[in-house]
Amino acid sequence: MAPLTGAEVAKHSKADDCWVIVHGKAYDVTDFLPEHPGGPKIIVKYAGKDATDEFDPIHPPDTLDKYLPKDKHLGPVDMATVAKVKTEESPEEKDRLQRVKEMPLLEQCYNLLDFEAVARRVMKKTAWGYYSSAADDEITLRENHSAFQRIWFRPRILVDVEKVDFSTTMLGTPSSIPFYVTATALGKLGHPEGEVVLTRSAHKHNVIQMIPTLASCSFDEIIDAAGPGQIQWLQLYVNKDRAITQRIVQHAERRGCRGLFITVDAPQLGRREKDMRMKFTEQGSDVQSGQATDTSQGAARAISSFIDPSLSWADIPWFQSITKMPIVLKGVQRVEDVVRAAEAGVQGVVLSNHGGRQLDFARSAIEVLAESVPVLRSLGLENKLEIYVDGGVRRATDILKALCLGAKGVGIGRPFLYAMSAYGQDGVDRAMQLLKDEMEMGMRLIGARNVGELSEGLVDARGLFNHAAPPVDNLAQAVYDPLVNPGQRKAKL
Amino acid sequence: MAPLTGAEVAKHSKADDCWVIVHGKAYDVTDFLPEHPGGPKIIVKYAGKDATDEFDPIHPPDTLDKYLPKDKHLGPVDMATVAKVKTEESPEEKDRLQRVKEMPLLEQCYNLLDFEAVARRVMKKTAWGYYSSAADDEITLRENHSAFQRIWFRPRILVDVEKVDFSTTMLGTPSSIPFYVTATALGKLGHPEGEVVLTRSAHKHNVIQMIPTLASCSFDEIIDAAGPGQIQWLQLYVNKDRAITQRIVQHAERRGCRGLFITVDAPQLGRREKDMRMKFTEQGSDVQSGQATDTSQGAARAISSFIDPSLSWADIPWFQSITKMPIVLKGVQRVEDVVRAAEAGVQGVVLSNHGGRQLDFARSAIEVLAESVPVLRSLGLENKLEIYVDGGVRRATDILKALCLGAKGVGIGRPFLYAMSAYGQDGVDRAMQLLKDEMEMGMRLIGARNVGELSEGLVDARGLFNHAAPPVDNLAQAVYDPLVNPGQRKAKL
Amino acid sequence: MAPLTGAEVAKHSKADDCWVIVHGKAYDVTDFLPEHPGGPKIIVKYAGKDATDEFDPIHPPDTLDKYLPKDKHLGPVDMATVAKVKTEESPEEKDRLQRVKEMPLLEQCYNLLDFEAVARRVMKKTAWGYYSSAADDEITLRENHSAFQRIWFRPRILVDVEKVDFSTTMLGTPSSIPFYVTATALGKLGHPEGEVVLTRSAHKHNVIQMIPTLASCSFDEIIDAAGPGQIQWLQLYVNKDRAITQRIVQHAERRGCRGLFITVDAPQLGRREKDMRMKFTEQGSDVQSGQATDTSQGAARAISSFIDPSLSWADIPWFQSITKMPIVLKGVQRVEDVVRAAEAGVQGVVLSNHGGRQLDFARSAIEVLAESVPVLRSLGLENKLEIYVDGGVRRATDILKALCLGAKGVGIGRPFLYAMSAYGQDGVDRAMQLLKDEMEMGMRLIGARNVGELSEGLVDARGLFNHAAPPVDNLAQAVYDPLVNPGQRKAKL
Amino acid sequence: MAPLTGAEVAKHSKADDCWVIVHGKAYDVTDFLPEHPGGPKIIVKYAGKDATDEFDPIHPPDTLDKYLPKDKHLGPVDMATVAKVKTEESPEEKDRLQRVKEMPLLEQCYNLLDFEAVARRVMKKTAWGYYSSAADDEITLRENHSAFQRIWFRPRILVDVEKVDFSTTMLGTPSSIPFYVTATALGKLGHPEGEVVLTRSAHKHNVIQMIPTLASCSFDEIIDAAGPGQIQWLQLYVNKDRAITQRIVQHAERRGCRGLFITVDAPQLGRREKDMRMKFTEQGSDVQSGQATDTSQGAARAISSFIDPSLSWADIPWFQSITKMPIVLKGVQRVEDVVRAAEAGVQGVVLSNHGGRQLDFARSAIEVLAESVPVLRSLGLENKLEIYVDGGVRRATDILKALCLGAKGVGIGRPFLYAMSAYGQDGVDRAMQLLKDEMEMGMRLIGARNVGELSEGLVDARGLFNHAAPPVDNLAQAVYDPLVNPGQRKAKL
Repeated sequence: MAPLTGAEVAKHSKADDCWVIVHGKAYDVTDFLPEHPGGPKIIVKYAGKDATDEFDPIHPPDTLDKYLPKDKHLGPVDMATVAKVKTEESPEEKDRLQRVKEMPLLEQCYNLLDFEAVARRVMKKTAWGYYSSAADDEITLRENHSAFQRIWFRPRILVDVEKVDFSTTMLGTPSSIPFYVTATALGKLGHPEGEVVLTRSAHKHNVIQMIPTLASCSFDEIIDAAGPGQIQWLQLYVNKDRAITQRIVQHAERRGCRGLFITVDAPQLGRREKDMRMKFTEQGSDVQSGQATDTSQGAARAISSFIDPSLSWADIPWFQSITKMPIVLKGVQRVEDVVRAAEAGVQGVVLSNHGGRQLDFARSAIEVLAESVPVLRSLGLENKLEIYVDGGVRRATDILKALCLGAKGVGIGRPFLYAMSAYGQDGVDRAMQLLKDEMEMGMRLIGARNVGELSEGLVDARGLFNHAAPPVDNLAQAVYDPLVNPGQRKAKL
Repeated sequence: MAPLTGAEVAKHSKADDCWVIVHGKAYDVTDFLPEHPGGPKIIVKYAGKDATDEFDPIHPPDTLDKYLPKDKHLGPVDMATVAKVKTEESPEEKDRLQRVKEMPLLEQCYNLLDFEAVARRVMKKTAWGYYSSAADDEITLRENHSAFQRIWFRPRILVDVEKVDFSTTMLGTPSSIPFYVTATALGKLGHPEGEVVLTRSAHKHNVIQMIPTLASCSFDEIIDAAGPGQIQWLQLYVNKDRAITQRIVQHAERRGCRGLFITVDAPQLGRREKDMRMKFTEQGSDVQSGQATDTSQGAARAISSFIDPSLSWADIPWFQSITKMPIVLKGVQRVEDVVRAAEAGVQGVVLSNHGGRQLDFARSAIEVLAESVPVLRSLGLENKLEIYVDGGVRRATDILKALCLGAKGVGIGRPFLYAMSAYGQDGVDRAMQLLKDEMEMGMRLIGARNVGELSEGLVDARGLFNHAAPPVDNLAQAVYDPLVNPGQRKAKL
Repeated sequence: MAPLTGAEVAKHSKADDCWVIVHGKAYDVTDFLPEHPGGPKIIVKYAGKDATDEFDPIHPPDTLDKYLPKDKHLGPVDMATVAKVKTEESPEEKDRLQRVKEMPLLEQCYNLLDFEAVARRVMKKTAWGYYSSAADDEITLRENHSAFQRIWFRPRILVDVEKVDFSTTMLGTPSSIPFYVTATALGKLGHPEGEVVLTRSAHKHNVIQMIPTLASCSFDEIIDAAGPGQIQWLQLYVNKDRAITQRIVQHAERRGCRGLFITVDAPQLGRREKDMRMKFTEQGSDVQSGQATDTSQGAARAISSFIDPSLSWADIPWFQSITKMPIVLKGVQRVEDVVRAAEAGVQGVVLSNHGGRQLDFARSAIEVLAESVPVLRSLGLENKLEIYVDGGVRRATDILKALCLGAKGVGIGRPFLYAMSAYGQDGVDRAMQLLKDEMEMGMRLIGARNVGELSEGLVDARGLFNHAAPPVDNLAQAVYDPLVNPGQRKAKL
Repeated sequence: MAPLTGAEVAKHSKADDCWVIVHGKAYDVTDFLPEHPGGPKIIVKYAGKDATDEFDPIHPPDTLDKYLPKDKHLGPVDMATVAKVKTEESPEEKDRLQRVKEMPLLEQCYNLLDFEAVARRVMKKTAWGYYSSAADDEITLRENHSAFQRIWFRPRILVDVEKVDFSTTMLGTPSSIPFYVTATALGKLGHPEGEVVLTRSAHKHNVIQMIPTLASCSFDEIIDAAGPGQIQWLQLYVNKDRAITQRIVQHAERRGCRGLFITVDAPQLGRREKDMRMKFTEQGSDVQSGQATDTSQGAARAISSFIDPSLSWADIPWFQSITKMPIVLKGVQRVEDVVRAAEAGVQGVVLSNHGGRQLDFARSAIEVLAESVPVLRSLGLENKLEIYVDGGVRRATDILKALCLGAKGVGIGRPFLYAMSAYGQDGVDRAMQLLKDEMEMGMRLIGARNVGELSEGLVDARGLFNHAAPPVDNLAQAVYDPLVNPGQRKAKL
């Protein structure tokens, strides 16, 4: 059969007759439109056209094979005959490309926040919006980082720290340093290759990677990108259809995943207004006064409609029955639930508020950690499960603080995305190396020779629970008119 | 009798012979001038002229019928003969009208503060001044909101939250969500139709409305605007003349009001300097140096002179004797008085500082709530009365916090005024819908299936009583000259 | 004897032969130069010239009579023959005079800080510098005000407050309101008439005035300016020569003073760098690089060299022996010394840090009050002496807070100086009236009918001792270079 | 032998054949390159050229004699024949030189921060970068100063303070005031004469100087610069080669040093990103996109590679065996180690975090002091050793606070470097004099006649442990995009 031509495809350009081209093949998505998790509109925009660029970052490559019936696969298109979508470069985009040209050398990045600063300048606005946004007023987003700054060190001196060793084990497998690459969605928004870039850096640095359910790459691509002996874990959003969930879990186990991290803080994915506002501005810029416009809620909503809000403690035994992987609950947020997790016999918890993207005013993981460990100890449960924390980690000193307070390891997400978005794998490599350099320095200066020596006595966390000065509420400040004193009068001429 | 002409009316244009036109009818207000609660000046300004535009926002339509003797009603005026008051458009007003043209689409408002931001741009300055201002340095105004930000969540995980139900009852009647539209004065400053706009939205969303004594619409207009089965309450400023008070209360009961909210925090209405300053600027712009000018204290003083400062606990039994409506004290500000209210047998209290408009440095309602509930419990009084809070609520998370701490519901005032002022009823509808969307999300993410499950264990309010960083004192900061280090000298040529 | 001519005086224009003219009379101050408390330089600057303008604000009129031997009084000068000192108006001074022309109407001042804002614009820079400056980094200066903002109200409701009465007695004499005009130096810097302006306003408002030792007016002038029955107190810097001190005290008692306030926080007058820097800039503007210049330390040092740093508790009985006036120690700063004062049998203490002008990081008076009263009570000393506080009072709510915490009254200084400097007596009158208006409102809203009802239960002062967020250290902030993220590179052309 | 010519030297201008000229003599450093602590690059940059200007600030003059074999000393060069390195003046440098011309007069500096402000303007950027930078986010750097601002005074009144005496003894030797000049590296970056300038001022003011291991001047130069009877201490970085350490210590003792301060907080010298970034900018300004560049880590790393990270408590007896000087551990950071130091029999500790240059989030010395003294007392160890603190001291009030809390004295470092860099010895003299003036004032105003009277009761340090508002994290703030409310739309024309 001869390939289709662009002209043929272009005839099917309406909601009730909708073909799209993805990676050189045409698909009839007319019937699928109402079921599209991201809503029909975004597809109709590309009806009759090549949708690859829009499709790629938010769908793993096997998506169409998995979800679209075979008879809707219309076969290859002669791409030479497809009219290039001319996207006139906006002034904003021109500015961005100029910024890319002038971006700092990789060597000028001295810490993880530097990558974020560069990524903010050089990423596409919508991608930056998706990665950097968080729930409501983004108070928790910022609290996650600033909570660490209410913990201070009590370094030991005169310890022989010529050799310091910060390697550790997590869920029984070794890691060169007590952090792992945590799961984050839509890696291709930041880099055309997506999550496999992180896989390669993780391998290079002997660091564990948690594979996200909502990756841009397919699960198998990420597994395939791993090096020999590389440890990977599976992050799981539990599907309403448990059969699908079971397939995913057992496939991951077969492919060698060494831990199952069940996300428990996202029965519904959070609203992120910054993301929504950015989207709106893009779409709505030529909207006429009074007209309605698309109010889609950004990328998050598009990709998450399958998540099961009914997931409960009652489901845990079932998970334990279908896999031998250690099970870790990701998103635990108070000590009562840490205790309950221990009693439920899972192998660990990740104290996390989902990077501040779910419930604003959820407390920082590090605070929940400081709340939990003493209780676990008093109940004799401290060895029943491993505790991880994520959110806000930017310095090796943050890792040290978490370990001193009883964490087994910490997850780091956005910083690696930013490093990848700005500099590709070189960026991620350097980010990890900087953390190791900081870690070695930090271990020496705190007077600890190995992670076993990181203990509560090395920190002063009394201020951690003090919320006297929460992050600024920018929206509220913006609408407040400060009182002013009496103005001058115009002098009469 | 032939209608009066504009020329005839215009002859009576002085303080000792003062006619004004309101809604096409002439009135002789000469004798009434000294009694006008807002002072005679503002009336004399319109002597001999059409005063409708000035009259409307701050007087219910039945005002003249009620308060001016019939013989002063001079009958209809041929409005065609009345010289239009030419108000040259000020540059400021032109700017404002331009801002109205360019205001954001309603769909771009994602939260309650967005409406405030738009209202601030598009409302008339004096109306904005009246709504947004508060007492003294407006510390309490801002504390009301920021107090919520010292309360953090302790979400439960792995609760089946597929279905969440946040409906509730207040004073025995149902509500779709635990907030009500609280009483705010002078709705027509923000929208030509005034409070009935709120009535309609409240009906649409199955939300209770509290009818203000100082509404721009008449009480009956607001009652008449209600839909079938719609619940309304009466907010009451107690008149020095108790007979009037009794008439108002019993009329309200007859017309179906389901609750009587007696304002107890306003024996005298607060000074609001921002409002005063704005007024002054408007009036005083062409004042010559050294001349005195009108020092009227804004809209608040004008409308409140009838309020009885002698109201006391001794009056409560009388109220209980004249009505069967549940009685709620609005403006309670410390636990001792909550206890006393319970002992006095009223059905509820609203913890409130009047939106920060009365006594600056009054504590936030949410703090008084956290102070009160444990005491009530220890006295076994927790079921004796319902507790409401108002002030500073902007997010569904604020509502959740209040309910976790023991409130039955929260009042929301200004945000709906702003939504109405910016976008009319569509704005109020969207504001309520946004709260419902946030509420559903919040219930899921906090792990509560219904309002009964909202309990103290879900919040960490330890920081609430910490006042280490009060809102900024802008006036004091403005007059302080920061120390500077030594300046450079001019190099000799 | 014929009056001297300007030419004759002008011959004596050097340090070793120095005549000056003051108020039309010539004086030979050659021998006095080394003894001049303000240093010889400032006098030599006027050698042979008319020094009246410089002399007046910082010397009471009887100074020369008192301190210069009669034989150095050279008699009247024919002022027509004296060359006017042409002071070219600096651009700064021109700007200031323009600001004076355009200053707000008095009616536009709604609170005490408004006067400060206006004074800052219209006062001479050096006068503003002297009044507004304080010790070191001016942390205490600002803490004095912001400490009040860590105290919140717990208002009582449903109290019959139709009539509120905030009159009181202090040291046994009545006052219309519980504040007094505290002693501040050099009133003529702000207004040509000096302290008598305050006397008149105090009389008009039935408010007590404390007469400063370092007034620009003479003590008798201030006494003479008092109205019938007006209460005045004497503030005393104790002279090294106790005979002088005795004369001053007994003279004051004879002239009717009703209280003796002995300053105990100033064994040496503080350095005020803002004042010094301002002075320097004035004097040093044409200094050549490398040259030394006058490093005089502003007005404070000039006027205070007589103060006795050896004053101690041992001196108290002597004071008690020479006067029957009630004795109050002004500048007490910790509870131990309050107790000791009670034991020493004095009638009162003023908790004060001298407006922040002495020791930086001295605590606010209001904090010392909250520390002291419970201890006094536990020792049964609470009725042994009256406690006053000063520093930072700007609102009637501040007065209410002080009284609730146990103060008998509060002193207010700078605000009245600013009101006087900006608007003369009208300003001071309005400032006092505004405080009374605020006070009436505040009493009503807090639910207190008289000062006897102002008690601890009406405030929440738990945050008062919290010093987590002290006033900004502006000098330290100015020298700190914030870290920056990596900059963009110049793209190669 | 005839002196070498510039041309002869210039032939050896590559890494594998590298001669340099220092102070008129040529050296063959080819073999030494790989061992150079600062890396070979910086030397190769000067291969065949005169390196004196670069060499001087970071090497004591005896460095080459000590570390380069004699046969590599090539003898004198005829400097007339050496081509001057033309360094075109950069616009930045021109600006700086202009700022130097216009710098304030010394007399305009009224406190220690003023010197810092001037130094910041007039120092070379790299020198300023080296002096002012600190570890990571420089949180500890700023906390060091701001911690003092959480301590308030409780002054005693009515103490006879005519004579106040703030002289003291430290390690048994007298000092005119309880501070000493602490050790800081690389004095010649700020002033061509280096540390001897400080020596001279210290002598003039009868103040103790601690001689730094990493001085720009040689140890003997600094000793030789001392006046008769002047007290000096030795600061020691312990060399991996203990024989060298022993030589240094015993030489110091022989030359009269009266105390041995062993640095225990620097097993590895900290990374200072500000310093690194500044270096990079200088070197990297003409780097082409994508090229690697020198990533040397600033001056700190260059000079510290010899420090022994294995130093431990086990080494203390050895130190006690080789010297009779009192031994003080410099850099103790928690009470446990203070106690251990007492038990180890050393004569003192310096509570210090190395000016914030080592471990970020180390607590301030003053906080560790407040933590330690009560414990020492409870153990009966308070007289076993002397406690010093350094870091953040800028005012005499800071010194007073430290002494009230139990310190024997305080170290001051950077402020004197800044005074020296800006104004040479005159600057340091004035800085010391200002501290003495402040000290006299402070003693009087706090009511203490001598250092023995400085006790805990004079301060309120309850807020010291409160870390609710840590210094701003500038990097994190810079990358955060505040939420904004909806923007205006462009009105259609």
